[in-house]
Amino acid sequence: MALLQVAEAQQLILLHSHCLPAETVPISSALLGRVLAEDIASDIDSPPFDKSMVDGYAVRSSDIDGITELSIVEEILAGTVSNHSIQPGEAASIMTGAAIPHGADAVVMHEVTTFDEQRKRVQIPGPVKPQQNIMARASEMKQGERVLTTGTLLRPQELGLLATVGRTSIVAYRTPRVAILSTGDEIIEPGQPLHSCQIRNSNASLLMALVTRAKAVPQYLGIAHDTLESLRPLIAAGLKSDVLLITGGVSAGKVDLVPDVLAETGVKPIFHKVALKPGKPLFFGTLKNTLVFGLPGNPVSGLVGFELFVRPALRKLMGRSETFISPTMKAKCRNEFHHKSDRPTYYPVRLHLAAEGWEALPVNWKGSGDLRSICASDGFAVLPPGEVRYSSGDFMDVLLPELDHWS
Amino acid sequence: MALLQVAEAQQLILLHSHCLPAETVPISSALLGRVLAEDIASDIDSPPFDKSMVDGYAVRSSDIDGITELSIVEEILAGTVSNHSIQPGEAASIMTGAAIPHGADAVVMHEVTTFDEQRKRVQIPGPVKPQQNIMARASEMKQGERVLTTGTLLRPQELGLLATVGRTSIVAYRTPRVAILSTGDEIIEPGQPLHSCQIRNSNASLLMALVTRAKAVPQYLGIAHDTLESLRPLIAAGLKSDVLLITGGVSAGKVDLVPDVLAETGVKPIFHKVALKPGKPLFFGTLKNTLVFGLPGNPVSGLVGFELFVRPALRKLMGRSETFISPTMKAKCRNEFHHKSDRPTYYPVRLHLAAEGWEALPVNWKGSGDLRSICASDGFAVLPPGEVRYSSGDFMDVLLPELDHWS
Repeated sequence: MALLQVAEAQQLILLHSHCLPAETVPISSALLGRVLAEDIASDIDSPPFDKSMVDGYAVRSSDIDGITELSIVEEILAGTVSNHSIQPGEAASIMTGAAIPHGADAVVMHEVTTFDEQRKRVQIPGPVKPQQNIMARASEMKQGERVLTTGTLLRPQELGLLATVGRTSIVAYRTPRVAILSTGDEIIEPGQPLHSCQIRNSNASLLMALVTRAKAVPQYLGIAHDTLESLRPLIAAGLKSDVLLITGGVSAGKVDLVPDVLAETGVKPIFHKVALKPGKPLFFGTLKNTLVFGLPGNPVSGLVGFELFVRPALRKLMGRSETFISPTMKAKCRNEFHHKSDRPTYYPVRLHLAAEGWEALPVNWKGSGDLRSICASDGFAVLPPGEVRYSSGDFMDVLLPELDHWS
Repeated sequence: MALLQVAEAQQLILLHSHCLPAETVPISSALLGRVLAEDIASDIDSPPFDKSMVDGYAVRSSDIDGITELSIVEEILAGTVSNHSIQPGEAASIMTGAAIPHGADAVVMHEVTTFDEQRKRVQIPGPVKPQQNIMARASEMKQGERVLTTGTLLRPQELGLLATVGRTSIVAYRTPRVAILSTGDEIIEPGQPLHSCQIRNSNASLLMALVTRAKAVPQYLGIAHDTLESLRPLIAAGLKSDVLLITGGVSAGKVDLVPDVLAETGVKPIFHKVALKPGKPLFFGTLKNTLVFGLPGNPVSGLVGFELFVRPALRKLMGRSETFISPTMKAKCRNEFHHKSDRPTYYPVRLHLAAEGWEALPVNWKGSGDLRSICASDGFAVLPPGEVRYSSGDFMDVLLPELDHWS
């Protein structure tokens, strides 16, 4: 039987992923990365009046012909209202953000004018264009107009806009809760004494951080032994979350009991293997709306599995409206590179942003257990199955990386 | 006097920015985005033994010639130690992650073999290469070897590697505390009743979120009125932070008292204007190690000022070792675009990741008060001063964006 392809597996996962219920949340930076579950209308015209964009003088543009001297009749501060209407030959001193007085139709920047303090007059160089340095009332948005829609990701600018329209709370999709369970008799926690043949649990730290970076909430369940008695209660606890990530115990080996316990609890298996390297043994199943991922025990396989399969699911659970999955970008290979595999391979590369675009340097990677190489890399080149050769300057497809190093 | 250029201003800021003291912190996802302040050595060989990368059979590669039948002498689980040495004609069933037994020098994947349960024998297809499916002891790292260095940004993979080497705490640079002060008599908070000529405070929400996204800790001080009495205590409170961001009150207008109050408190002004649009009036000064930024009151100016000037400073305070500042990438302009300004302009664009690379669509932007356009955009094209014309397909330089929409 042909192995399931990555894109097919991703489609199956998305088919079983449904966005979480919405809830009302106060506006704060904690909303960064969450997704609107309502359309947002403006309750105001913005700006609420014709507004000066600079500090300077509000004038009648038709008054100005070459250098023109005008009489200053008032000072308009931001937050005050002028009752005077500017007459021919008059100007008003005006602050950034203040309302343009009646009669005026342009603002001249303070820096280009000459002010005569004693005579309260100002020299304005012409010509002056109508509407110059004015942001017209409602030019950003009109009262009642929809300014953000359901499915919008909340970034700093959206939080700023929500403040502009007076919101102190919004309706957002709930944040996914992701339980993380490590399995394996040989696995011990980093703080414990290490005996021969034991391996420290790097997966839990890795996955907790990946979940956190994806703006979901991780819950660590600990390490299960390779026994039914140890696995059952921990898996039962994990199935109360929106997503359960299990590392180890899902390959074809004899003590890989995870699939048995999942079957007992009613988890419906969707697939168990995907054509990729690293990370071919990859279990996905569902119990009602809970998504269960069995990731391989090697940390790099777990990382690749998370990025390719868990990440798109979390995005859908969080209500994101974007439809892309694992987008790639082009990067120029910086050296000779040769690779051979029967499966599509996600190969770690170090990225460099050159003047002409991204460059990728494949690292000296020793396989799915080699997390150190992943620390020396920024992303993964997507290599097609078979034998591939890149010369220096050839383009590679690279999974769009987290740009941590550049942000 | 020629205006200070963006790059000159950035250099001045970095000259006055010093990385914060280090502190010992327990390992957790809260460390994401923080920076190591110590070199990390491995306390172990990793893997600690020659390790099987797959579930299968440990064999002597020289035994296998075509399809070869071997006798299974034991089962080696992960976490157990084998005392048997594999002899010619023998194989051991072995799990992923388990230690290779003496005598064996290769592992054959379970999937390609045929197992005879009754006779406890397995058929192995050849040829088998020595070291196949084995990760050699210490091939990832040797005991005592330095695996991470001071200045390394902590991402999920680094947290995983720290677990691998047994760390439960590390020394990291302290996180910058960033105080945010809004100023202006016309500014009110989003929850308050809005009177004519008043403007809701979008800057505080915007900057709190920008600081949070930059992995620093924001502290909001509220809104100061345009009086010395209101500004003094709030500025004094803000100067206790590592960074003080003040919005509004820094242009050349008459009630812009912020520079006066800063001077009173001993803040040394470094510069007060930069050649850019939006956001020319931009104050930077220092008081001992505290950095003070006066950002324009218009939200888009504040956003651009934060990204260009505050962000590099925060990166340096956090101990980041990267030397780039405001990197740009190339993106193809998707439509005709024309712009004219006397200053370099950071113009909002919507980004699209096409098969051949990034494309940029300049949005219909109405100026520095127009936050709504910024919500419709993903980044800023950097336009040189003067008149610029782009045809569809021409390359633009785009500030490397936060890839929120793609992550």
